[in-house]
Amino acid sequence: MIDYIQDGTEIYRQSFATIRSEANLSSLPPDLERVAVRLIHSCGMTDIVSDLSASPGAATAGRKALIAGASILCDARMVAEGVTRKRLPAENAVICTLQHPDTPKLAEQMSTTRSAAALELWRDHLEGAIVAIGNAPTALFRLLELLDEGVPKPALILGFPVGFIGAAESKAALAANSRGVPFIALQGRRGGSAMASAAVNALAKEDEL
Amino acid sequence: MIDYIQDGTEIYRQSFATIRSEANLSSLPPDLERVAVRLIHSCGMTDIVSDLSASPGAATAGRKALIAGASILCDARMVAEGVTRKRLPAENAVICTLQHPDTPKLAEQMSTTRSAAALELWRDHLEGAIVAIGNAPTALFRLLELLDEGVPKPALILGFPVGFIGAAESKAALAANSRGVPFIALQGRRGGSAMASAAVNALAKEDEL
Repeated sequence: MIDYIQDGTEIYRQSFATIRSEANLSSLPPDLERVAVRLIHSCGMTDIVSDLSASPGAATAGRKALIAGASILCDARMVAEGVTRKRLPAENAVICTLQHPDTPKLAEQMSTTRSAAALELWRDHLEGAIVAIGNAPTALFRLLELLDEGVPKPALILGFPVGFIGAAESKAALAANSRGVPFIALQGRRGGSAMASAAVNALAKEDEL
Repeated sequence: MIDYIQDGTEIYRQSFATIRSEANLSSLPPDLERVAVRLIHSCGMTDIVSDLSASPGAATAGRKALIAGASILCDARMVAEGVTRKRLPAENAVICTLQHPDTPKLAEQMSTTRSAAALELWRDHLEGAIVAIGNAPTALFRLLELLDEGVPKPALILGFPVGFIGAAESKAALAANSRGVPFIALQGRRGGSAMASAAVNALAKEDEL
């Protein structure tokens, strides 16, 4: 037998304690602290704090929306899978339209990625929703375009697209002008579906465990 | 309209070109190079190369196993979701037993995490399989214990558990003694389901796009 901790709750407890002892969270507004801890937990990196950007009160707005039953719109099924259903306060719907049968056709018609085209199927769900983008920069760019077109506003945008082409740019565009929508984002190339769902999971429940 | 690249294939092409121009891949064996590129692509960080460890010929072994029809055993559904089915060379089965109805009971009986207990249901699938661990250090520790007990050997272990408790330790244990099984792992706290599935996706197809 190998010697390792096998108690899941204890692993979470020690993980969060290690993060709080190592990460510099002092620069963050209080409502964002638990979100930052869970983001760090999802990626193993304490230095993401310096790349975190958010509008004032964004975490509080997201928490209130989830309690009020907000749907969670995800750009990728990995994000949807990462949302811990039993943490959700109102059996909130978790929606991902990337694999919808209409999406490839829409992408072709719009000459864009499937990730961006999938947002066409979000239109009826956007009002008051939590948008969790953890994969595709084109999805975040398209969301900003839709907001410029006047679609109903979500309650919160979680901006965590990852990668080398458009990720940093799309999150910079969100932070520069979030079109009046509260947002939390990780600036730069880093991000990912695990971070997007970690942010949702942090907002979903006061208790960390 | 915002100006951004909307052609998915072009985004991939430019991403991989950016990675190759920025990352130092010269230290890697040739068969690991494409795996490293796709891992970097999944996380947005070129500096992971220095934390990458692998047994000689591990990527080649994994590629051959996939072509021969190897099953892919995943510790989390996010990993399974991240495997691009259309890249797989032999309609390989993608198996995750974490949500199997027997897993919670097994975890209780074994006084361990669900992630570790879920491996009990891998026993009949382990021989010649690709094991992709992208979340739970306890799953990787348990795999090493099972190999010590003499279970049939998988073809390749992809070790990418993430976090602050056990992640670095489990991957160090794998690299120190992989029980004769080829492995690719990211040492340290970093890792995650996106990296585990990116490794599978890299091995699945010669063509990067």
